[in-house]
Order: sequence, then C-alpha cells, then structure tokens
Amino acid sequence: MRNSTRSKVAPFIVMDVMEAARRAEAGGRHIIHMEVGQPGTPAPSGARDALARAMEREAMGYTVALGLPELRARIARLYHEWYGVDLNPDRVVITPGSSGAFILAFTALFDTGDRVGIGAPGYPSYRQILRALDLVPVDIETAAENRLQPVPDDLEGRDLRGLLVASPANPTGTMLGREALGALIGAVQATGASFISDEIYHGIEYEARAVSALEITDKCYVINSFSKYFSMTGWRVGWMVVPESHVRTVERLAQNLFICPPHASQVAALAAMECHEELEANMAVYRANRALMLEGLPRAGFDRIAPPDGAFYVYADVSHLTDDSRAFAAEILERAGVAVTPGLDFDPVRGAGTLRFSYARATADIEDGLERLRQFMAAR
Amino acid sequence: MRNSTRSKVAPFIVMDVMEAARRAEAGGRHIIHMEVGQPGTPAPSGARDALARAMEREAMGYTVALGLPELRARIARLYHEWYGVDLNPDRVVITPGSSGAFILAFTALFDTGDRVGIGAPGYPSYRQILRALDLVPVDIETAAENRLQPVPDDLEGRDLRGLLVASPANPTGTMLGREALGALIGAVQATGASFISDEIYHGIEYEARAVSALEITDKCYVINSFSKYFSMTGWRVGWMVVPESHVRTVERLAQNLFICPPHASQVAALAAMECHEELEANMAVYRANRALMLEGLPRAGFDRIAPPDGAFYVYADVSHLTDDSRAFAAEILERAGVAVTPGLDFDPVRGAGTLRFSYARATADIEDGLERLRQFMAAR
Repeated sequence: MRNSTRSKVAPFIVMDVMEAARRAEAGGRHIIHMEVGQPGTPAPSGARDALARAMEREAMGYTVALGLPELRARIARLYHEWYGVDLNPDRVVITPGSSGAFILAFTALFDTGDRVGIGAPGYPSYRQILRALDLVPVDIETAAENRLQPVPDDLEGRDLRGLLVASPANPTGTMLGREALGALIGAVQATGASFISDEIYHGIEYEARAVSALEITDKCYVINSFSKYFSMTGWRVGWMVVPESHVRTVERLAQNLFICPPHASQVAALAAMECHEELEANMAVYRANRALMLEGLPRAGFDRIAPPDGAFYVYADVSHLTDDSRAFAAEILERAGVAVTPGLDFDPVRGAGTLRFSYARATADIEDGLERLRQFMAAR
Repeated sequence: MRNSTRSKVAPFIVMDVMEAARRAEAGGRHIIHMEVGQPGTPAPSGARDALARAMEREAMGYTVALGLPELRARIARLYHEWYGVDLNPDRVVITPGSSGAFILAFTALFDTGDRVGIGAPGYPSYRQILRALDLVPVDIETAAENRLQPVPDDLEGRDLRGLLVASPANPTGTMLGREALGALIGAVQATGASFISDEIYHGIEYEARAVSALEITDKCYVINSFSKYFSMTGWRVGWMVVPESHVRTVERLAQNLFICPPHASQVAALAAMECHEELEANMAVYRANRALMLEGLPRAGFDRIAPPDGAFYVYADVSHLTDDSRAFAAEILERAGVAVTPGLDFDPVRGAGTLRFSYARATADIEDGLERLRQFMAAR
C-alpha cells in the first residue's frame, strides 16, 4: 500500500513547539502557552446545561444534514443582530466546525486543478485542505501597507477560480473595512470567480465592528464557527451561508460527506447563543490581555507589531532578531518558558522572520508570559 | 458563481420517502419507520453520565488530531477482546464518524482519477464521497450466490487502486467469512491495490462472529464507528486502524481537514465501551426483531430474502412484484403506513427491484409494521 500524492501534507511547525512544551511540562517546568489558537474557557455554562438536559430527554440520533432547523433560524437572526442583514435561514448550513465548512465549500465550488487564492500570511490549513482536494492554493503575498490583507491589484494575472479571505485574520488580527472588502469582492466577482469569506473571528473585535461579506453581497460563501467567540473549539460545530441556488448542492454533499454535524454540539451551540453575559466576560479578558500585549511586547523588544483589530493574536516581525523563526521559537521556549508559534506555519516564505503570540488565555498567564519575554530579551 | 462538476451528487432516494413520511405524520398519521439506518436508542447512560461529569470539570477544547490517547488505547484493547488481535494503539485514529474516516482513507490512499471498487448493492455514500474527491467509483455487481459480496473473480480486468468492502454489509446484512475475506484481501494485495474494510456493523451479529480484516493482515485500512453497536449515531465519532507506516500521513491530513473529532463525543465514547449490559440489551432487541422479520416478511409476501448475518436490515428481492422500487416504496408508505427504503439507493441498476427493511427500532413497532405489510400485500 502506498500513500497518495495528494496526502503529502506539510506538518504544522507549531506541533514541534507544542511537543517540546509538553515534554518540558512533563519534566516539571511551568510553561506559558502563547502558541494556542483557542480560548482557555469552556463552552458557556448555559450551553453545557442545555446539553445535560437534552441528554436526559432525547435519543440525539442523526439530525438532518443541514443541521437543526432551530439552530439555522437562530443563526439567521444573529445576522440581523450583528449586521442588520435579513437572512433566509434556508441559506444557513450547520457544519462540523469551520473545517467541515471549508471541505464543503471547496468541493461545492472547485474542480481538480482549479486555482484558489489565499493570503500569506494566513491559516495554514487552507493550503493543506485545498491540496488534499487536488486544488491549487495560490499564495498571495500581502503587503504591510495593506495591513497584510489582499487588495484587488494582488489578483491581477493570477487566473483564480476563487479567493478566500479572513477578516479578522489569523495570524495578524487585521480586518478588512467595508470599502476594502467591497473592492475585493467586486474584483473577484468581475472575473467570475467565487468569493469565500472566513468570518470565524467575528465577535472578537476591539476598535471597530467586523464587516460581514453578507452586508455587501449574497453571491459569496460565508464561513463561521462556534469555536472562537462562543468558546466551543472542541465541539466541532460551525456554519456556512451560501447563495440560495447552492443550498441543494451543498446539502447533498453534506449528506454524503458528513451525514450531519454532531447533534450534541448543535444543542449546546443553540443555547450558547443566549449566553451573552458569559461571552462578554470572555471578551473583557481578551480586551485586557490585548492591552497588556500592546504595552508589554514592545517593552520586551518585540516592537514591530500592529494592534490587532480582532481575534486574539499579535503577529510580530522579528526579522531583525532572527532569520529562523523556528529556531527562535525553540529558544524562547527553552530559555523563557513561553511557547509561541513560528511564522513559517502562516507564510512559508516570509514567516522565517515572524512570530505569532496568542493572548487567548487567562490574564495572569499573559502578565507572567510578558515578564518572562522581557527578561529573556534583556539577557539575550 | 457556479458549482463544480464534482459536486453533482445524486440525491438519496430515501429522502423522498422520509419527507413523505414526515408530511404524513404532520397530517396526523402514524407511520412505522423501517427506512431508518440507526438505532432508536440513545447513547448508553454510562456514556451520557461520563460526559455530564466531564462538562463540569474540563474546558474540553481541541484534542490532538488523532484523538484522546485513552480512547485510542481502549479501542486497541477492544481488538484483543473481540478478535484476539494485539493492536498497537498508535495505529488507531479517532475520526468524526466513519464518514470522516472515509474522507481520510480516500485522500490518504488515492489520487485524482484512481479507480476504487465498491460492491453493489452497497452504502450509497461510498460512491458519492469518492466522486466528490474526484475519484472513480467502480460498481461491482455482486452475485446472489455470493450472498451479494464481491469475490476475487469480480476484480479481474477492473484496474482498481483500491477495494472497499463492508461485512456485515448494508443493505444486505451478509458477512464475509474468514476464508472469503482472506481470499479477497489476497487478490487485492496481489495487484498492489489498497484494501479498506468497513466494519461499522461489527458487534451486531447473530449466528457467527464477524471477522475483522485485522485478523488476516496489517496491510489494510479498517473503519469502524460508535454509531451502530454503541448506539451513538448523532455523536459523529468513529475510528480507523491504519498500517504503522501510514499514521503520520493520516495524522497530518486529520490535523488539517478536521483539527480533531468532537471532544465531548470522544469522552462519551470511551465510557460507552464499558456499558456492556445496556448494549447487550439493545442486541437482545435486534435479535428478537430479526426473528420477527424472518418470520413476518415471508408471511406478508416478501419471501425472497436471506437471513442477515449482522446489522439490522433485511434486503428483499421484490422484482416479481415491481420494476420500480421507488414507486413501490411510495405505495407502501401511502397504503400501509410503513416507510421502507427503495433499493435504488444501494444499487443504481438492480435496485429497481429491491427494498431494504430496517429493524433497528422498538419490537412493538416491528410487530405493528409487519402486520401492516401483511394486510397491505393481502389487499394488493
């Protein structure tokens, strides 16, 4: 038995950091985790209570492939609450995490060999999922003056069948404002290509509200998840909004590829949407952590950073400090006891000179981590 | 925006039956559900209790991509308990249902255009998942004298890169004995193709024990799930056993395609594996239902059936009664109030003359359904 060519997927470099951190902890060291891409908080207590009750009452077998109708309707209402958009619940597809949504979107829209643009730096799995589906990821090297987001000029001569954009973005936390997003959507639509908007960090935003692609056009796929703002990573439940004319196609794909999203997670997700107080308490932590980071990172010596508009990451240019972010991250773990993510996971080229710092965890950890980083850099 | 060619997936014909049944129930009719492919029972109470406790205690974020180590180890022990096979837990991959396992197996093993053999009749999603991944499903029309399972001679001249076999099978419930399975594995391996064994109905077996492909060879992929024997369909948690040399490749694919299987479902699944009493009580129901079916279906006039070795289906040849199983199923629903599955979902050609009856639900429903079928056929 041999493996396929399409399965030759590059490993996450951060996995080496995480494994080294695990070994250090097993050896008795205390490590601060600034490498993680998830909240340290559990699902809201209202979500867990709702599931505990449902488990007493229902068999919780398969749901229909598109997900629980009441969850689809509630998500449609969220678009009114958050964006003032009236959304037909029929267009909402519940998915097994945003991961499942990417698989559905890419198979629904693209054929073998199709070229799909993604921003670099960007979420590394975009590239790998596209490859596993025998599609061609096209890295668009974004510019610092565009806050590391693609702009219409970047699309010239790329021959793209689709463009995938994230706002707020991972790893940078930068957002596309309404004008920038509109220009990008217009440029993509003008070529007949498909626009996919990854809005997984919506709700976690600081200075301004994130703009949904659905405020601008119905002719796009929008992907979101309960993982980040709703603090439900491990539950693997997300959603996708597709044009009405695509619903049947996506439904059939979902029936066959997944049967349905996890029923228990859907029940919990529906209740999570009413847990405003707890979710806003999480946001207060992110806000406090962000302020600490924006003050503490430059003080430690990581001064080439931009304030993130959303999400819970700071992406730092460290090219004046190293040309090997992987080795630098290993050194920071070893000497400072702080786990961080080398930029190479997000940008195969320029990431050798960048690091991502996450501030998703408890504020005390952030304070401790920043002080460790300061001492490490001072001694270096 | 246009949809891809690979997304042109045929609908499940049974969905029309289910929708008609739903409408009939909404109109006040009482319908017996012999179309469903899932237990009517919830996850074992021990599984639900374990999850309720874990939700109080843990944040339940992402697990590692291959799944909770203790669940992988427990599944490895299951292979000793059920088959006397010593299995390295490192080879066990927890997946988002067997659906997730198929996606992982197909992408790990096959490249665009590769031909993969599947038995007809067989589980309809095999064909559709393969198509969505731009692979070529090759229907192998199985013979009644081989109990509708493929045999080595069926592989001649097919130019297959892989063969996928289910035992016990859906929709027939027939099993491959050790000798038949060994012959098939030998024939596939002799061509250098990959062998994938779908063992999702293992544990639900009647006259003889199901044989795992792992009793015969380590050079295969084995797919299983908590959906059927463990009564956890909606939880979307399954597993796959792969050769040691494939683990890293599958791990990287899983990291990118799914991040991880649902954490809550993994916690519940681990506890479900100790709920022997409840699971055996479910089996007693299936055994009683099967006996009722084997007596009642022929009495009603559905006499071209073979006793299922496993699973909870009876596949009936009704070609002497109809040449349009879809219309016949609609007639049975309308006049008898019993929902059944037209064979066309499982066998695009010969399925026009077959029906699948499920006996996964409560015994009282089976008794009622069989009496309705008897009266319907007597009046016909």
